[in-house]
Amino acid sequence: MSIITIVGAGMMGSAMSYPARDNGHEVRLVGTHLDRAIIDRVREDRYHPRLKRYLPYGIEPFQVEELETALKGSDLVIGGVSSFGVDWFSENVLPMIPEKVPVILVTKGLQEEADGGLLPFPYAMKKKLPSSKQNISINAIGGPCTSYELADRRNSAVVFCGDDMAILLELKKTLETSYYHINISTDVIGVECAVALKNAYALGVSLAIGLIEQQEGIGCQLAYNPQAALFGQSIREMMGILDMVGGQPENIVYGAGDLYVTIFGGRTRKLGTLLGRGLSFHEAMKELEGVTLESVVITKRIASAMHKRQAAGIVRMNDFPLLAHIYDIIDKGASVDIPWKDFTKS
Amino acid sequence: MSIITIVGAGMMGSAMSYPARDNGHEVRLVGTHLDRAIIDRVREDRYHPRLKRYLPYGIEPFQVEELETALKGSDLVIGGVSSFGVDWFSENVLPMIPEKVPVILVTKGLQEEADGGLLPFPYAMKKKLPSSKQNISINAIGGPCTSYELADRRNSAVVFCGDDMAILLELKKTLETSYYHINISTDVIGVECAVALKNAYALGVSLAIGLIEQQEGIGCQLAYNPQAALFGQSIREMMGILDMVGGQPENIVYGAGDLYVTIFGGRTRKLGTLLGRGLSFHEAMKELEGVTLESVVITKRIASAMHKRQAAGIVRMNDFPLLAHIYDIIDKGASVDIPWKDFTKS
Repeated sequence: MSIITIVGAGMMGSAMSYPARDNGHEVRLVGTHLDRAIIDRVREDRYHPRLKRYLPYGIEPFQVEELETALKGSDLVIGGVSSFGVDWFSENVLPMIPEKVPVILVTKGLQEEADGGLLPFPYAMKKKLPSSKQNISINAIGGPCTSYELADRRNSAVVFCGDDMAILLELKKTLETSYYHINISTDVIGVECAVALKNAYALGVSLAIGLIEQQEGIGCQLAYNPQAALFGQSIREMMGILDMVGGQPENIVYGAGDLYVTIFGGRTRKLGTLLGRGLSFHEAMKELEGVTLESVVITKRIASAMHKRQAAGIVRMNDFPLLAHIYDIIDKGASVDIPWKDFTKS
Repeated sequence: MSIITIVGAGMMGSAMSYPARDNGHEVRLVGTHLDRAIIDRVREDRYHPRLKRYLPYGIEPFQVEELETALKGSDLVIGGVSSFGVDWFSENVLPMIPEKVPVILVTKGLQEEADGGLLPFPYAMKKKLPSSKQNISINAIGGPCTSYELADRRNSAVVFCGDDMAILLELKKTLETSYYHINISTDVIGVECAVALKNAYALGVSLAIGLIEQQEGIGCQLAYNPQAALFGQSIREMMGILDMVGGQPENIVYGAGDLYVTIFGGRTRKLGTLLGRGLSFHEAMKELEGVTLESVVITKRIASAMHKRQAAGIVRMNDFPLLAHIYDIIDKGASVDIPWKDFTKS
């Protein structure tokens, strides 16, 4: 039995308490300053108001002021913040974690560098740490796993990635259950790039839903040929980008599974559908009540990095026509006009 | 304007008349002996009773006895038979086609060879032709495209594969429309293998639908983590098999798109769902009224070839646990028990 501290009580961070508790670990859940109401409620009766489920018995909730207590004696820290909380986590949590305690992030994403490089969060975080902390092991979780279904103990397959195979094996042993299936990989850039890209491309595939609805009315019978065409093109471009960043081609698997699950629900699908129906990005975001979507941020970040690489002559955006179009829609207010013919240039 | 003769008036063969007519070609549709009633009806009022749509104006329907007339002067022959009609097509149609007239098949699939080899239909057909006919160009269409949606002129992306790039470019020019998008590839084995495999794996992913229904009742809210996990594992195994047959890894794109579209409908999904609910293969096939599914035949064929290769020491079925399980279900009456832990072996 280990002591596992989850920092960040959003949906995915909190959902990690299910496999952790099911394996008999002591689980501490620490809310950030944004999670105050969640922690209050969890303290009352274990109910998580955003996850809409009761968290497992025995979980110990902490408010952000109690972070130090919650980290004391921990064998593993799970970073449960969204990509918007990464800086906060780096600056406020990481420095408090002893070097020998491994960290694993549920946060998916990439940080853009000035030269068009894309850094996975584990590396971006490490870069900011003082030299005295460089031996800390920061790992990340990728692959298709929605928090609701993890909380419902549905079979879910993820991948833990990090630099140290021995630590990955240990993490797998700690968190794997009969329903939470864990692959491991040391290809951090490949895995993180594949799973970050699915955000952009899920938006792309969802456009097809709205396009049909625009023609035939909302609630019409959906067509799948166009979705499948965009899905195939997405996989093609994702493999190209994976290659570009030096990731292992087989890790497209996690991107593909993640793309599949993201298309079925959530706000990225909603946004893509609204755009496909003919709303401008601005109008669509208004309909989504202005909530900033991670998918939008990540898409902009990747596309912007690609454009920098194009300017440096090492990438041709023509090879990524779907990504380029998505970027035009969300960044330049372009209307949806899928560049079908660019997908089949010989 | 060319003369295009489609032989086989099933759903996909007939649906090819839309892009062909839209490009202004003369289109002749020849039914096989199984399509007699279809051709009778098309002659009456152009209605295709299985496609449930009116075929385009100006299409000329022929019964099988009129095959010779229908082929006369043709610039292109589209093979519109299912995989069950491949031998008939090889023996009765191909010998009547002049060597200089290219052929393109809508038929997807692979033929198993005695040594565990897998031959795409274009090659399998050619093997049976006399030496005087070896210069005929036999091509095939892969990629995600359902006949209904092609008939509805939905955006659909396919790939034409064959040995001769110049002929592929010509075929693309002949059949590409504003909604029918054509990639071309000379990797016949890679493309055909990828699109054949989607049949087996669509069955695999659909198992997850039935498994949830078994727990929570038919019509329950579906869970996507398990589907996505199986989708990812499918892509992993498909990439492995593509590599095994010497196909180009990037052609996984067509298999992935095709897998995506196949999961959304049709009898393969139905079969997978029934099996997932706990029916035996025998019971499930009874529910499907005993119609032999191409997906089942192709799955058995590929798995059988893989087992032969395993016996020869060149493949380990352990590397393909999902395919092995699907084969056990449909060939050995095994009950569904997804080998999740075999997907994450390190």
